[in-house]
Amino acid sequence: MKWYKDAIEVHTRGKGLYPITELVMRRIRQWQVQEGMGYLFCQHTSASLLVNENYDPTARADMETFLDKLAPENQSWYRHTLEGPDDSSSHLRAMVTPASLTIPIDDGELSLGTWQGIYLFEHRVDEQRRSVLLRVLSTRD
Amino acid sequence: MKWYKDAIEVHTRGKGLYPITELVMRRIRQWQVQEGMGYLFCQHTSASLLVNENYDPTARADMETFLDKLAPENQSWYRHTLEGPDDSSSHLRAMVTPASLTIPIDDGELSLGTWQGIYLFEHRVDEQRRSVLLRVLSTRD
Amino acid sequence: MKWYKDAIEVHTRGKGLYPITELVMRRIRQWQVQEGMGYLFCQHTSASLLVNENYDPTARADMETFLDKLAPENQSWYRHTLEGPDDSSSHLRAMVTPASLTIPIDDGELSLGTWQGIYLFEHRVDEQRRSVLLRVLSTRD
Repeated sequence: MKWYKDAIEVHTRGKGLYPITELVMRRIRQWQVQEGMGYLFCQHTSASLLVNENYDPTARADMETFLDKLAPENQSWYRHTLEGPDDSSSHLRAMVTPASLTIPIDDGELSLGTWQGIYLFEHRVDEQRRSVLLRVLSTRD
Repeated sequence: MKWYKDAIEVHTRGKGLYPITELVMRRIRQWQVQEGMGYLFCQHTSASLLVNENYDPTARADMETFLDKLAPENQSWYRHTLEGPDDSSSHLRAMVTPASLTIPIDDGELSLGTWQGIYLFEHRVDEQRRSVLLRVLSTRD
Repeated sequence: MKWYKDAIEVHTRGKGLYPITELVMRRIRQWQVQEGMGYLFCQHTSASLLVNENYDPTARADMETFLDKLAPENQSWYRHTLEGPDDSSSHLRAMVTPASLTIPIDDGELSLGTWQGIYLFEHRVDEQRRSVLLRVLSTRD
């Protein structure tokens, strides 16, 4: 077994889903990993990860709107407001979406389903630089 | 360390929780894995996975009702409606429940708690054939 | 590669977020793991895990309030009420927060972001003893 590691940097400009499937796949191809497990970990408390619909942009729009409605900004009961009206809501959105993902690798590719893509989910309004840790366990030496 | 892989096929007939604990355990026993880590990955964007209450059917019913209420079908603001009123809601339900699970294996069994079971969570109304990837890292050779 | 295992016991006194970062880190230091992957698994259906804001207590308070509002206790439609008004709500809260976490280890430490901490999320009102399984895959022998 062999271990590979890298970080994926994502420059976000506002809330929403940022596709990172290709950034992950590029590393796996460079490392020539044939089989194993891919691990992603988001090092932020106001951004998260997601595996979901990658084909139709309206699906992505509905996911973004849903999270806006589920944990709206600027609620009167928020106590954590130091960094503005999107401070607390961004932690709440990160709470109900994953910080870590594990995705199998087979035949040199991520074993995603036909319609699946990997996203960084940005929850802050302002521009951010996000770091997603990628680790790969290869079953071959 | 040794690597095992298989896919678990689940034939669903409508929305709800489908128990897959036994299907997973059967493979682990066949492979005679004593200790390690079990990985599950759902290859769909309108179905997901869940570890939760496995004993009382009313708990399962409440979990299904809750998700129906949290992300209802047929909302006027949905833009992703090509495949019907349960299209967008199914992606939203998959968004707030996991696509991947990691469960330890000890003494030849999944180390689930007393009341825990593993489910495929189907979010579409129509009959579907679902595929859940199972990977096992065994700590023994 | 090498495998380490332990269980982290958490004595909870009511609903809320209980920090466990230090309990996890202590094991990793004892085992002298330099690099690899840390796995956490919560063996309960009315408690879960979370990686989120660890610095400002108001962020934690808002996360607890949010989950109280998202899946309130004592709803008229709940059918699973055998163990009281916080029975069904506790499973629902466990449903939308993770049962398993995977966190990279580098340079002998968990690779958490600056503001991230690990929590056990207790969803029951009464005192409980919770068990979180810790597994570590070390890339060194």
